[in-house]
Amino acid sequence: MDSQEFRAAAATTTDDIVNYFDNLGSRDVVSSVRPGYLRTLLPGEAPQEGEPWEDIHKDIEAKIMPGITHWSHPNFHAFFPCATSYPSILADLYSSALSGACFNWICSPAVTELETIVLDWLAKMLGLPACYLSTGPTRGGGVIQGSASEAVLTAMVAARDKYLRETTKIPIRSSELSDEDAEALAIKRSRMVALATTATHSSARKAALILGVRFKAIPVRAEDGYALTKPVLAAALAECRAKGLEPFFLVATLGTTDTCAVDDFAGISAALEEDPDAALAESESGIAKGEIWVHVDAAYAGAALVCPEVQEATGLAGPLARFHSFDVNMHKWLLVNFDASCLYVRDRDWLVQALSVNQAVYGKKPLVDADGNDVPDYREWQIPLGRRFRSLKIWFVLRSYGVRALQAYIRRTMRLGEEFAGWVKGRPDLFEVLTGPSFALTVFRMAERSQGQSLEERNALTKALYERVNATGKLWLTSTELDGKLAIRLMTAVRTTERAHVKAAFKTLVEVATEVIRE
Amino acid sequence: MDSQEFRAAAATTTDDIVNYFDNLGSRDVVSSVRPGYLRTLLPGEAPQEGEPWEDIHKDIEAKIMPGITHWSHPNFHAFFPCATSYPSILADLYSSALSGACFNWICSPAVTELETIVLDWLAKMLGLPACYLSTGPTRGGGVIQGSASEAVLTAMVAARDKYLRETTKIPIRSSELSDEDAEALAIKRSRMVALATTATHSSARKAALILGVRFKAIPVRAEDGYALTKPVLAAALAECRAKGLEPFFLVATLGTTDTCAVDDFAGISAALEEDPDAALAESESGIAKGEIWVHVDAAYAGAALVCPEVQEATGLAGPLARFHSFDVNMHKWLLVNFDASCLYVRDRDWLVQALSVNQAVYGKKPLVDADGNDVPDYREWQIPLGRRFRSLKIWFVLRSYGVRALQAYIRRTMRLGEEFAGWVKGRPDLFEVLTGPSFALTVFRMAERSQGQSLEERNALTKALYERVNATGKLWLTSTELDGKLAIRLMTAVRTTERAHVKAAFKTLVEVATEVIRE
Repeated sequence: MDSQEFRAAAATTTDDIVNYFDNLGSRDVVSSVRPGYLRTLLPGEAPQEGEPWEDIHKDIEAKIMPGITHWSHPNFHAFFPCATSYPSILADLYSSALSGACFNWICSPAVTELETIVLDWLAKMLGLPACYLSTGPTRGGGVIQGSASEAVLTAMVAARDKYLRETTKIPIRSSELSDEDAEALAIKRSRMVALATTATHSSARKAALILGVRFKAIPVRAEDGYALTKPVLAAALAECRAKGLEPFFLVATLGTTDTCAVDDFAGISAALEEDPDAALAESESGIAKGEIWVHVDAAYAGAALVCPEVQEATGLAGPLARFHSFDVNMHKWLLVNFDASCLYVRDRDWLVQALSVNQAVYGKKPLVDADGNDVPDYREWQIPLGRRFRSLKIWFVLRSYGVRALQAYIRRTMRLGEEFAGWVKGRPDLFEVLTGPSFALTVFRMAERSQGQSLEERNALTKALYERVNATGKLWLTSTELDGKLAIRLMTAVRTTERAHVKAAFKTLVEVATEVIRE
Repeated sequence: MDSQEFRAAAATTTDDIVNYFDNLGSRDVVSSVRPGYLRTLLPGEAPQEGEPWEDIHKDIEAKIMPGITHWSHPNFHAFFPCATSYPSILADLYSSALSGACFNWICSPAVTELETIVLDWLAKMLGLPACYLSTGPTRGGGVIQGSASEAVLTAMVAARDKYLRETTKIPIRSSELSDEDAEALAIKRSRMVALATTATHSSARKAALILGVRFKAIPVRAEDGYALTKPVLAAALAECRAKGLEPFFLVATLGTTDTCAVDDFAGISAALEEDPDAALAESESGIAKGEIWVHVDAAYAGAALVCPEVQEATGLAGPLARFHSFDVNMHKWLLVNFDASCLYVRDRDWLVQALSVNQAVYGKKPLVDADGNDVPDYREWQIPLGRRFRSLKIWFVLRSYGVRALQAYIRRTMRLGEEFAGWVKGRPDLFEVLTGPSFALTVFRMAERSQGQSLEERNALTKALYERVNATGKLWLTSTELDGKLAIRLMTAVRTTERAHVKAAFKTLVEVATEVIRE
């Protein structure tokens, strides 16, 4: 494909994209193909000779689009949103053209430097404490990861090594450990436990499985709004200590996956301060006791911190200054397309010490700018070596929208959630709200039909409602289970979703619920 | 930004990209900005109000391009290439618009299905044994990872858990291990060692550090062309066994980073077969002995397997049928832009058993197509949960070029390497070739000036040559060290590199070398 052909093809693609967004609402939200549909449409081998663009292009609408579920569809109320926006698409277009494995500064200085700058912009927008800025007092900073899963794994690796450095005298990174040291280290590790709650995203458990460390999910309760509280955490810590286990990592969540619960950050901070074994004091053996690393998973709801009233309401800033890492996915609710998971740490050395493979890193003179700030070597802040130019889409989105428009978008979609929850509550004959609205998410189920109705019967009704509504193809909902209660999640945070769409969704829910009850 | 503005902006961006590639050769290869350049050019905070596209657009050329190092520049001879091509850019443009967190089939069936299909296409093109096909006899298949680093980490996690399942009776994924089991597992793990060579990419060591397992780099020798051979591996295995260590993972490389050496796959296979402790036989204790997982890192040179003569020469297919995983980065030498690291395994269950967080996965009925093949749940084949639609760019590139054009490109760039090495060898007064040409990479240094010249003197001359050539800004080379000898790597595999560019590079090298010697 030469320049002329590319120019023409890019114009066609642009038209396709504009038409796609302009007419998105007329498509079914969820793909209705059957498993294996595409194999029957495509040859079993790559072509020997190149094909003209026209042939490739026509297959997009004919073969690919039927297999697409539309995450930007106004009636997409499932999971959390996955964003896209015109400025973000343009940035990725430049990024594709400038493709490079930009693993360190010289591989493209702009890739490193723009990342540092826009992550500082974002930190300020979200009201993160200054210790998370690249220029802050504690050598903190942010780095773009591919997903919140990679972010929590990266944080957990750093936390494990930090804890081991604090609690043992073994040179943990040596490739020539003595048998005694290796065994002592192994036994130490076998006692370490990563903590989360039963509402924490599964990525925390996956990270523990990958690292081969113990994992404990602390049960959260309906009466606490499924959030982790001080007494619950304190009890869990005491239980670990009683068993001889050593908690080294805790995931606290701002906006859990199933209900958008917000853990009690101040309570968590207080519980950790009062945990007699968690102090970083020298013990009698001369070995310090390890500190528990707190990672705040704000993958979805962290976006709402762009609104000062949300910063206030969540009370995160104070405790976060004592925590260790924070992650928010701009590709969920901040109009940057997948992938842009922004991970912040209070001290970059925690990452570098765990992830650098440069043996001489401690002696290495870092690259510094004119102000004496060292330039991040981001390959030492992440699992992969190579990196895409992902900060460009953050930059384009923040500039194109500006802070106020992002605040307005977040507030508008949260209001939609409040309106929807209000309508649901207005029909107690049909529905019961279990949680929310919280960050544009309402969790509800079918109302109790009669006294003594069993949980199973009620779950069956809710399941019927859920499945029939999704079967219409007109909207997409996901379900969850809370204390055995099947519940429906309805999220109103997609960029294209307007009041009329939510109203129509509610109308469908009422109709189908009425039908389900009638039968 | 509305549809009309996007249409106009996309046209401008397309023009920029066409102009970029049409005039790429006139730019300096490597950015010459100073660390911190961008912070002085940008505001310290995101704007409150949105900015017009024109303002954002003009900053691309004014502020970003000076900080870009041009990986597609015809005079980029550093590292390995990082590809981009027009069809790949178009595919990513669609992918950005269709942004979704496509973590399972229903989240966009096309994303899962196209990935399976094009990775089968690629496996056939590369001549991988049938066991790596999704429809093969062993339930193998391929998955797109972000980078070769993630691929080796993913393989190492799967290998660790496979080995532990084979060699212990401990329920390794249980979150409620007894203290005895936890300690026994920990001690077992402390004896396990991941093997690689001193020429293996640093990602192997990084994976071991992340997982907290022992890592041993087996020294490779100049007389073996820096490749791992049967006797060297056999000796390393014996050394491990003598120390009570248990090798569970080995990285074998097709095209090492510094010299593009190819490990002796048949020899590795033979050494493992003859390793008395590695057989999967039941021992007296009733516990099977573990098998060593062999991961073939073909990140760069694996691309050349599209040429049947390279398949023949490397002798990979036979041994690979007995190995466990294989990884090639299409974003290096196969014209797909970053990121597209294609990881293949012989049995998908090895990944799923290590990476699934679905407790009920073993009982779960998999999604099957009409032919009874189960549809991959790719979130269980990788570390992250969410996924971009990356197979689209592989599909576009394979269709737009066709197999023959890709073969022609690989052969053309390898021939450039042979020509360059020939010219270097033709000037024994100036240069000495240390390795290659191998897969378009030649490694050379300054010739010996006089009998008895010290290694330091010779290294100093080579360093002077290397630094002065790079300082011209006209081409970019990287260096390496082989047995203490400083050497220069020159790679000729970039898509835009023509004979004239390589000739000019050689001319510059001769001029600068002559100058260095004169002084």
